Parts: sequence; C-alpha cells; structure tokens
Amino acid sequence: MANITKKVSWSSRADESGATGEGTPLLNGSEQPRHSRQIGRLSTVDLEEEITSEEDSLRGRPKEIPHNEKLLSLKFESLDYDNIENQLFLEEERRMSYMGFRCLEISRWVVCGLIGFLTGLIACFIDIVVEELAGFKYQVVKENIEKFTEVGGLSISLILWAVLNSAIVMVGAIIVAFFEPIAAGSGIPQIKCYLNGVKIPRVVRLKTLVVKVCGVICSVVGGLAVGKEGPMIHSGAVVAAGVSQGRSTSLKRDFKIFEYFRRDTEKRDFVSAGAAAGVSAAFGAPVGGVLFSLEEGASFWNQMLTWRIFFASMISTFTLNFFLSIYHNKTGDLSSPGLINFGRFESDSVAYNLYEIPLFIAMGAIGGLLGALFNVLNYWLTIFRIRYVHRPCLQVMEAMLVAAVTATVSFTMIYFSNDCQPLGPEHTEEYPLQLFCADGEYNSMATAFFNTPERSVRSLFHNQPDTYNPLTLGLFTLTYFFLACWTYGLAVSAGVFIPSLLIGAAWGRLFGRLLAAITSSGSIWADPGKYALIGAAAQLGGIVRMTLSLTVIMVEATGNVTYGLPIMLVLMTAKIVGDYFVEGLYDIHIKLQSVPFLHWEAPATSHWLTAREVMSSPVTCLNRIEKVGTIVDTLSNTSTNHNGFPVVVQVTGSDEPAKLCGLILRSQLIVLLKHKVFVELARSRLTQRKLQLKDFRDAYPRFPPIQSIHVSQDERECMMDLSEFMNATPYTVPQETSLPRVFKLFRALGLRHLVVVDDENRVVGLVTRKDLARYHLGKHGLEELQLAQT
Amino acid sequence: MANITKKVSWSSRADESGATGEGTPLLNGSEQPRHSRQIGRLSTVDLEEEITSEEDSLRGRPKEIPHNEKLLSLKFESLDYDNIENQLFLEEERRMSYMGFRCLEISRWVVCGLIGFLTGLIACFIDIVVEELAGFKYQVVKENIEKFTEVGGLSISLILWAVLNSAIVMVGAIIVAFFEPIAAGSGIPQIKCYLNGVKIPRVVRLKTLVVKVCGVICSVVGGLAVGKEGPMIHSGAVVAAGVSQGRSTSLKRDFKIFEYFRRDTEKRDFVSAGAAAGVSAAFGAPVGGVLFSLEEGASFWNQMLTWRIFFASMISTFTLNFFLSIYHNKTGDLSSPGLINFGRFESDSVAYNLYEIPLFIAMGAIGGLLGALFNVLNYWLTIFRIRYVHRPCLQVMEAMLVAAVTATVSFTMIYFSNDCQPLGPEHTEEYPLQLFCADGEYNSMATAFFNTPERSVRSLFHNQPDTYNPLTLGLFTLTYFFLACWTYGLAVSAGVFIPSLLIGAAWGRLFGRLLAAITSSGSIWADPGKYALIGAAAQLGGIVRMTLSLTVIMVEATGNVTYGLPIMLVLMTAKIVGDYFVEGLYDIHIKLQSVPFLHWEAPATSHWLTAREVMSSPVTCLNRIEKVGTIVDTLSNTSTNHNGFPVVVQVTGSDEPAKLCGLILRSQLIVLLKHKVFVELARSRLTQRKLQLKDFRDAYPRFPPIQSIHVSQDERECMMDLSEFMNATPYTVPQETSLPRVFKLFRALGLRHLVVVDDENRVVGLVTRKDLARYHLGKHGLEELQLAQT
Repeated sequence: MANITKKVSWSSRADESGATGEGTPLLNGSEQPRHSRQIGRLSTVDLEEEITSEEDSLRGRPKEIPHNEKLLSLKFESLDYDNIENQLFLEEERRMSYMGFRCLEISRWVVCGLIGFLTGLIACFIDIVVEELAGFKYQVVKENIEKFTEVGGLSISLILWAVLNSAIVMVGAIIVAFFEPIAAGSGIPQIKCYLNGVKIPRVVRLKTLVVKVCGVICSVVGGLAVGKEGPMIHSGAVVAAGVSQGRSTSLKRDFKIFEYFRRDTEKRDFVSAGAAAGVSAAFGAPVGGVLFSLEEGASFWNQMLTWRIFFASMISTFTLNFFLSIYHNKTGDLSSPGLINFGRFESDSVAYNLYEIPLFIAMGAIGGLLGALFNVLNYWLTIFRIRYVHRPCLQVMEAMLVAAVTATVSFTMIYFSNDCQPLGPEHTEEYPLQLFCADGEYNSMATAFFNTPERSVRSLFHNQPDTYNPLTLGLFTLTYFFLACWTYGLAVSAGVFIPSLLIGAAWGRLFGRLLAAITSSGSIWADPGKYALIGAAAQLGGIVRMTLSLTVIMVEATGNVTYGLPIMLVLMTAKIVGDYFVEGLYDIHIKLQSVPFLHWEAPATSHWLTAREVMSSPVTCLNRIEKVGTIVDTLSNTSTNHNGFPVVVQVTGSDEPAKLCGLILRSQLIVLLKHKVFVELARSRLTQRKLQLKDFRDAYPRFPPIQSIHVSQDERECMMDLSEFMNATPYTVPQETSLPRVFKLFRALGLRHLVVVDDENRVVGLVTRKDLARYHLGKHGLEELQLAQT
Repeated sequence: MANITKKVSWSSRADESGATGEGTPLLNGSEQPRHSRQIGRLSTVDLEEEITSEEDSLRGRPKEIPHNEKLLSLKFESLDYDNIENQLFLEEERRMSYMGFRCLEISRWVVCGLIGFLTGLIACFIDIVVEELAGFKYQVVKENIEKFTEVGGLSISLILWAVLNSAIVMVGAIIVAFFEPIAAGSGIPQIKCYLNGVKIPRVVRLKTLVVKVCGVICSVVGGLAVGKEGPMIHSGAVVAAGVSQGRSTSLKRDFKIFEYFRRDTEKRDFVSAGAAAGVSAAFGAPVGGVLFSLEEGASFWNQMLTWRIFFASMISTFTLNFFLSIYHNKTGDLSSPGLINFGRFESDSVAYNLYEIPLFIAMGAIGGLLGALFNVLNYWLTIFRIRYVHRPCLQVMEAMLVAAVTATVSFTMIYFSNDCQPLGPEHTEEYPLQLFCADGEYNSMATAFFNTPERSVRSLFHNQPDTYNPLTLGLFTLTYFFLACWTYGLAVSAGVFIPSLLIGAAWGRLFGRLLAAITSSGSIWADPGKYALIGAAAQLGGIVRMTLSLTVIMVEATGNVTYGLPIMLVLMTAKIVGDYFVEGLYDIHIKLQSVPFLHWEAPATSHWLTAREVMSSPVTCLNRIEKVGTIVDTLSNTSTNHNGFPVVVQVTGSDEPAKLCGLILRSQLIVLLKHKVFVELARSRLTQRKLQLKDFRDAYPRFPPIQSIHVSQDERECMMDLSEFMNATPYTVPQETSLPRVFKLFRALGLRHLVVVDDENRVVGLVTRKDLARYHLGKHGLEELQLAQT
C-alpha cells in the first residue's frame, strides 16, 4: 500500500490521447496547486478573518506517506454539464419557435427509442452468441470427459478443458489489453465517473463498444467467473453516446442529424438513458435501470428526462424479449425477462414469516462481511496489478493463467466430489455429467461448475431442496469466492454481478440446508431456494453497495414482488455492515484511479472551509478584447493547462481593477483560433462568414490541441473579441461562502468552473472539480488528497 | 369560466391565519407588481438593450378576460429550502464534531423509522375501522333488503340505505368543512405544492391529520365513490412533519428533541419520506412510494436521502403488514400488500403476447380520453363550486346529496339489473345479494356496487370470466364515472385512485369480454381480468398522469412484474393522449388555487427573457447596521409585505452606491425584534444572553406577526446589527442571465429569494417564486399569469 510509481490507469496512454486533444489536462489553476494557493492566500490576506485555530492545527499536521488512493489525478478533464449561455446560444434559442422545441423534444424521444432498441439488440447478440458457443464448448468437453471416464486418463480431458478456456480467454484479453484497455472490467465505475462529470478518455467510443462486446463473449465462453451484465451497461452507454450525436468520428460518418445534442449536457442525459437501457436489458428490469441511472449518476432529477430514460429502458427490454422469443421459438411471448433469468418464483413457495426476518438480517450481515473481505482482497490484488502487471502481454498471460486455473480447480472439485443426484425425469440440467456416479445419476458439483454462471445461479435458486449436499455448497462457495475475486480486475471485459450472485446463492442455499437440518419439522425452512435468493442479494449488496436500484433489479429479475421487503432489509444490512470496513468495489476502483469524483454532499465537517481556501488562485484571466498572441501563449503554456478562463473588462485609462464579465473555455478559444475570428480580419474581409454554433458543434467533442493550430506572427498582433462567445453570466460565489454551499451549487448544477469574486465583482479565484473532490472524510476526520499528475 | 369573485381556497381563512402569522403574505416586491416593475424598468432603462420586438408585441397584446387559472395568488408564502448560512449557523456547524454529525445522521434514520411506523399504524387503523364499520353497515342493509324483498316495499330499504350513507357522510363533511377545510380531497395536490416549496397554511398540522383520518373513514363507510389511498399520503406527510420537529404546537408539547431539524430544509426531506411512507402503506408499494416522492416532489436527488425515504417506506409497509396479519389471524405472515390489495395474479394466467400490444395501446388511448373527459368535467364542477358552493353548510349539504344520490343510483341499478350469477361453492363475494335471483344465485350488479370500492376492484380483476355480463359492466362504468367525477372535490377527505381504478377495471373487463366474444377460439382472450387490470391502469393514468411511479405502484400492488411492460406502455399512451387535451387532475386543482407552482423547467421559449425582466424591483434593502424604527416600519408596511431583504453596506461618507453583503428574512428580523437584540442594549447590559440558533428554532415555524411585537419610541432609535444573523453569501445572478438559467438555479437549489446584482455587486432586483411561476407555456406560446391577492 505504499506509494505507487507506475500504474495502469484508465487514461494510461496519455501520449496518444494527448495527440487527439482529449487527454489535455485539466482545470484552470491546477498546476502547482499548493504553491499557487499559498500565493493566493497571501494576496488576499487582508480578508483572512475566519481561519480558526482548528484549521491551523489540521494544516499543521504532518502528512502521512502518500498512498495511492490519497492522490487525486490531474489528468482527468471535467465535463461541462452547465449550458454555455453565450450570445450565439441565446440567439439560436430565441430564434427557435415553440414548434422547434416540440420537434427537439420528439427527436429526444426518438433517440431514446433508438438507444433502447440498439442496446436490446446488442444484449440479444451477446446472449445468443454466448449460448451457442458455450453450448458447443460444453458439448465437446462433456463428450471428451465421458469418453475418458470409461477408458481412464481424465487428465487429458482436464488439459483439453483448460487449453480451450485459456485460448478463448486469450483472444478476449488480447483485444482488450492491446486495442482498448478502457474496455476492461465491468465498465460500471467508468460510467459512474462519466455521469458524475469526469471525462474518461475513449470510454464512449465505438471501438470500445466493439472490444467490449467481443471481450465479454470471450470471457464468459472462456469459463471465467464473470458475468455479462456489467458490460451491457457500458455498452448501452456507448450506444447512447454514439446515436445521440448523429455521427461516428471513428467511422468518419456524419449524418447531419441531432446536431443540437452535440454538447455535454445533452449527451450526458442520453448516456444516462443508455446505461438504464443496459441494466434493463441485462436484468429485464426497466425500472431498476432507471433507478440505477439515477442512483449512480444523476444529480438534478427532471421528470421529463426520467420518462425518456424509462422509455429507453422499456424499449430495450422489449426488443430483447422479442428477439429472444424468436430465438427460443416462442415468437411473440414477451413475458420472459432479460439476459439473466432468475426463473419463476411462484408465490406459494415464497411465503415468509416474521420470525425469518432476523435470519434475513443475519444473512445480510454475513453478506456485508464477505463482501468487505472480497473488496479488501481485490483492493490488494489491484494494487499488486498496478505495480507489477501493467504491460499488456503480462496482462494477457495473467488472464490465461486465471482461465487455466479456473478450469483446473473446477475439474478437481468435480473429480473429487461424490455428490451424486438422481437424474429426474424432467431433468433441468443441460449438461449433466455422470462421471463416477451410477447410471441415472449425475454429479451435482458439476452442475455448479460445468455451466455458464447464469445457469448455475438459476439451478441454485430452483432445484429440488436436496439437489446439492452441504459439502458441495461449502466447497463451491469457497473456491468460487477466490476465483471471482482474482478474476475481477483482469484485462478482460467482465462483470461482477453474476459471480457475486453465484457465491451468495451457494452459501445462502447452504444456510437454508443447515436451517432445515437443525429444525426438524418446519416445512417453511424446507425450501433452500429462498435462502439462496436472499444470500445472493446479500453477497451482491455487500460487494457493490447499491440499495434502492439493486432491490428493484432483484425484484424485477425474480418476477415477484413478495420478496421486496426481505431483499431491501438484506441489502441495507449488507451495506451498513460492509461500509463499516471498506467502500464498495466500484468506489475502490474509482479511488485507485485517483479520479476527482464528487460525492453527493460535501464532507459533514467541512463548514470551516470557505471558497477562499478551496479555490485555485491566482487565475489567468482574459480581456474581453484580447490579443491573439496572448491567447495562444496562454493556451500553449503547458505548465498551466487551464481549461476555463474568466473574461474581465478593464475600463481603459482607469485605475480600477477589472470586473468579471464572462467565462470562456479552452475548447471555444481553440475553435475561434482555428476559424481566425479576429477583429481586424472581420473589418477587412466583410464577406467572411460569421461563426456559428454549428462550428463549435462540428468540433465537439474532439477539439484539436493548440499545437495543431498555426498562427502567424502577424496574426499574433490581431485582436479577438470574445463578447459573443463567452458565457456572459457565469455562476459566481463570494469568497466567504462555505465549502458545503459551494459544493451544493457545483454539484446540483453540474458545473465545471465556478468563479469566486470579491464584493466588487473582481475575480479572485476559480473553483473546479478537483478543488472540491480534494476534501474527503477519512478515519481521522477531514482529509485532503494530494494532487498529482499520475 | 369567467372571472371568479369569491372562492373557497386552500388558504381560505386568511383572517384567522393572518393572526397566527402564517398567512402573512408573500415575497419581497410582490405588491403592485406591474407598477413597480415598470418603475424598475425605468430606473434601469440604460441597461435595457435586449427588449426584442417579439417581447413588445406580447406585452402589447390585449389581455383576455382573466380566467381564474390565469391568476397567480400572492397569498402563498414560499418555503426556504436553502440553508440560511449565517454566522450563528456556521459557528454551530463548525463546533460540531464528526461524531455529532454521525449522531444527527442516526437520528435522521430514527425519525424516518418512526415516520414509517406511525404511518403504517394509521393506515392499519383506517383499514380496520373502515372494514368493521362498512361490514356492519352492509350487514344491516343486506338484512333489510332481504327482508323487504320477500314482503315487498323495497323503497324502505332504499331510504334506509340512503339515510345511513348521508348521515355518515354528513359527519365527515362537517368536520372537514367546519374544522379544517384543508383536509378536503386527497391531499396529494397540497403535498405536491409543499414539496415544490409552497407553504400551504395548516397543511401539516396535527388537527389536519385527525380530521383527515376521521373524514376518510366517514367517506368510505358512507359509500361515496372514493378511496382511502390519497389521504394516506397526506397523513404520512403530516406525521413526518410532526415527528421530525420533536414537538407539537397544537398540543403545546415540546420534547426538546430533534431541534436541529427545525427548519424548512430538513422538514421537507422528512415530509418526502412521510409521503413515500403513505404511498407505501396505501398500496404496499415501498419502491413506488419512493418514486412518487421523487417524481412529485424532489428536485435534488441525494442518495442518502433516498435511502432514508426508502427506509421509511419499508418500515411503513412492514408495520401495516404485521398488524393486519394479526387482525386477519395470520400473525407473522408478512407477504400481504398494503391497504389496497389487487389480489394475486398468478404467472400462468397472465402471459401476454406481441399481438396484444396494440390492444393495450388502444386501451391506453381510451384511458387517456376518458381521463381527459373526467378532468374537464371536474374542472367545470370545481369552477362551479368555487363560485356557488363556498359556504361550509352548503358544502355539507352537497356532500350529503351526493351520498344520497350514490345510494339511490346504486340501488336503482341493482334493482333493475337481472344479471344473476350462480353462487359458487367458494363464493368470494362477502355480501352477495340475492334479490330477485333464483336461490343459489346472486345479483352481480350488486357485487360491483354493494361493496367497498377496493373489494369491487378485486372482484373485477379476479372473478370468473363470466361473472359480469357486458350490460352490467357498461352501466356500471357509466354511472360510476359520473359519480366519481361529482364526488372528487367535495368537502370530504377522499382519494381519486380507487374510483379511477374501478372505472377502468369495469370498462377494461368489458373490453375483454367483447374481445372474447368476437374472437371465437382464443384461449388467451379468455381472461377478462387481465384487461380489467390494463383498463384500470389506463384510466388512472389518464386522470392523474403519473408514469414511472404509477407503473411501479401498479406492479407492486399486483405482486407480479410480468405486467410491468404493458402497464408502462398503457400509462405512457394515456398520458400522451390525455395531455393533448387537458392537464392532470392534480395540476388542474393546483392551478385553480392559483398556487405559484414551479415546474421542472422554464418554458422552452423563454430564452429571450432575462433576470432584468422577470425580477421584482425596486427592492427594499436594509443596512448592515440598521435603525430599529426603519426595520419595524418596513415590516409593518402592509402594502409591501416583503419576506426577504437584501442587506447592503454603505461606505460612510462616500458617494459610492451600496454593495450587497447579505440577505435576511422577515422571520429572522421578527425574532431579533422580539429579543430586542439592539446594539445599545448589548453595550449597557453586558450580561445579556447572546441570541442563539435555538431562539430561531423555538420560534419556527409560527413566527409572530410584527403587530404583536411592542417596540417603544426609545427603542425605535436604537440600532440593530444584522451581520451575525444575515445569510452572508446569498446566491446572486447578473441582470443579463436568461430566465431558463435563473429558473434552473432557483429550482435546483430550492431557493426562495435570488438577488439580482449589477456588475458592481449592487442590488437591482430580487427574483422570487412568483416571478418565475408567472411564465407558462399556453396554447399561444409563452403566457404571463397575472398576480392577484385572491
């Protein structure tokens, strides 16, 4: 847990992305933050009347050795969820008629419908391909095992299985590690960050989607302890980001539609819808999808937006159900749920009683404990990986190793298990392995291992009470726990939902079996499937720590609301217990990437901090009419790398200090420079086309870096009039505003830059995302993260 | 639809509430708005550079004869959902340790648990009392009818029934009309307004709760076409507002707990939780409750808050289930849902197919149409009531009339119906009326009418396909539609959910029967219960126009998620179709009360308006150190009745204009005056206790009016230092800010006053709720509502 020197990060290829202009680092006033802040403090020392002794003592505390998670990376850009209301924008809005707005609204619905449809299609594609390939693989291995069970030499079967798995996983790992590292993992942390307002490079690109889809197919077919649900959420988000822009930069196609949506605000809304559609397709849970989007992403709840998200979710489930019904030869039967199917819980078998509530709560606590253990182990593993396994070939090798080990362990467990069960007449197992069992019987350990994880979950929920014996369940839980923990974080695209559910279902079922054993004559205890469900919820809740959305997802996936109440209880208990030890898995990974993530509220004990303390200062300001040379120099200054500049107006010939009159972004300046919108040129060439909003939209979101724009020496002497392009009414706060108040404004409006002014409306500083994300509540009260270029 | 002169409004007893200080009207700059705005415009005429010709033409348009719904009442005060961060508050927050915040957080959870528990108890109480009383009543009437069926003279039974109903309803109407008019109706519009930030006088008082609970029992037992679900939501909100304050002003008890929560921000959060708990208890839908609160109320989505709301919902359902399970002698069986029980929809009978989707959509459209018709009729009726039925005794008489008519119509329908059905062996009807049917048969029209509405809904959902013949269903729909429409808006406390569901279930079942008749051999059409459910959803959606929360509520109430998708489709169709004609029922009633309700976003075509146009100006400002006399005069000025005052600082002896340095509320000034916090007194009496936050909390929320505070002539010459008490960092916007931007800031942060400043930080105006609510999108583009003291 010491300081990490080199790391494999979400934005690892800084060199490459720097060239495309997306990695261009961060925020105004970011460089040498501690130093410049010190200057800022000195310069405003006359106003410094509220520094308490408490604050001083905290600042004087010796710094600990910086851990990796105590750093805040400066590499991540912010998204701008506040509309840039400059003159161009306002003119466009004012020109637009009521019908125009209606059409826009309708196209938003159309886009959401498309998002849902495409996401559903992708989910369908993944599901069918996985089913076919996995079926084929299991068929081959099964035949092989059966052959060698008779003639002896089962080690050959083991080798076949392990090699097959490794080979498939290798393909998945190679495309991820070499082509698109951001496609690794479930993608949920990345989408969380995106919705929070952090720009994760390449996260919503077409290439990422392709790699993600192929990668997840390989991981699941390759027999890893992974699920395909997390990646679906990421896929939905990419689809949304693509469809809503009406063009693909990767494919170099611009359909000239939806141009109005080419800005962060609109795009974010669609990405929310995409993520919801992904959840909806993955779990057959449209409402759960909406709640997921809101719980993980949104800050401002808007009714119309929520309905659109809901619509996308609905279409997504609908599309998936429809195509799957065709695939399963039940065309038109739309009642089946999403990718994961928990099977039907019939109402009669699912009754529960008051005296079971304490048991459920106990299971929630177990889930919280096991979840915390899982997260801690995975945290250490991730640290290890960041330190030692950062080269793509090493990552591929690790993935192959895990695949081989998974196969070997599974095989060994199956081999040494003697849990033979009679093969019922309706036998629900798709690949029953007889092995050394008597004829008409099958090995029940094999059912758990020799299957896609989804099927295993279902069989744990629904099989006859005595299908698995306790030893099988215990061993399975143990091995699968460690396998899943090892697997999450590999350079393959894979989700953690299904493995968590599987672990939980296994120990939950075990719990149910034990209960049934100690209470002799209770028919209510007789159904271990119920406890498997509760265990699954507890384990998943303990790992990912969602409550509301997860409850709804579980309820929708089981198709029965009777369990709503116990599932809620269990998830809440799991969260409370788990949070006592360690954060949720996604948050851990976000922290390990040093992302400036903004939580819901400012830390409770931060009222003694004011805007003056947290802001970055001094700030580079531009004049309303500024020399081109100055602008180019400001933008080229690699030691500052500011992204937003307050625009000030100086009364000519007067001594008075400059007043704030607007805010302009780096990206806007770049476009202005590219189109050479100089005052002198406008005068000489009267025919020159006036710059329009369209020019900014065409450049969005991949604005070229300043280096690629040539400005001649003559042009450097020209002037640029920013009045028309700057946001003339940026939000401001006085210096005395407390941190929670600043935080609330910033978070509620999704700001990127917040100007701090004195009582004469002069700029004294700028608050950006990293200034706020820096403060967090640690074990010893308020802590301040360090900023670093990692 | 002409101008309404006298009206019965939610805040009807202005005289009485004026004395308690709650009705003290509105916002800074509210009086003579058009006039003073004109002045403001003249005074800032030099900045007036953006008045477009479009705007002029709109302003120049001749005003229509003012309709009632084109007015915006100035009587409603706003709530302050933005923390008043003055020095006292900050000092308290800074003093508080991390453990202190943890304890606060825990007490928030405790309060939410209590809210859920008490709401569940109340729901349970209502349910049991209604069941017992209604059972008793139906028993009496049934015996009477049976007696007179044999001997003739059924008109005596009719009279008995009608008189019984009228008498019960009279009790309910009297307590509502004479004691607490705000308890009339479902309470949902009022809670919507409260959560939106409008202070509706007396809406969350204990007296309101008592009247509401007794009133709803009387209405339901009195056989009106009403439900008990809406009132549950209101009851939950009152419980929340009471419990969270740790005291009852009505009972004059202060438990000295939860003092921290005595401000609008915290109280609002708890009221959200209460409303959610109410929904949860009413429908057995905890998730639906959370969504209802969010969809109708919240603007800023906070994860922790959502979880607490969820917790309250959960506890509420749990409590209700537990106590009802005792009542039903199935102690500990918690699987039964809330007040309304749709009964079990078993999965086998509920499958649906692709080709049914168009039918569902068609049903949604029918629901939308019928809903719009319902709303239009009710709108006219409400206008009529506002004009002519505003005296309490008239209201009571109308309620009795409706009760008598309902009984008579029901009786007539039953009498002339010849829809006899065989009494099955398991007969599910609780009060089967034989009337003129053969022995062993019962009258099926009587099942629909001679029952509490909840039971009728259930029987329409679940009875055997041929239970009701089409004529019965058609007649029932027709009569019940008009009865329900007439009933909603009476001076009784009653909800519209159940009647809507019942109407919808009836025509939905009719639809199903007709389908089954025209398609000879389709077993899938055979179950009219499915169509009854869809019809119920469509009708309810068409009337109240909720989508997301209603979907979840319906799904949770049916206990089966299979219908999620069709219900969503139906609700969305109903909303789209209905919105084409008229708004939702709740919105109509809110509008008819002229409440300054803020919608989610500013009207789309309002970008040409800026803060300068919408703000109220000139504004009465106070100096940082102000003469007591000035303050008293300002507060006493009944022609202005401001509620918030910008505090400015004037450099003594300088010519420079005053700069904004804070914002103080009327309520704060009142407390300061009451405690005589004068500079001179502080100097002379050194022992004087320093005013603390506690003093403000003790006075919250019923601050005395200025008239009740005696200030002597000497004291008028004293000075008051406001620095410590004003909010030193109010949010401000420049004058050029566009209306949508102002709106977004105002709505997202739940502001009450937003100061408009010029570029020198001088106050030029104040934006309040009514300034923003004034603009709305009508049929002819942007319309401006008139402000009035109605």
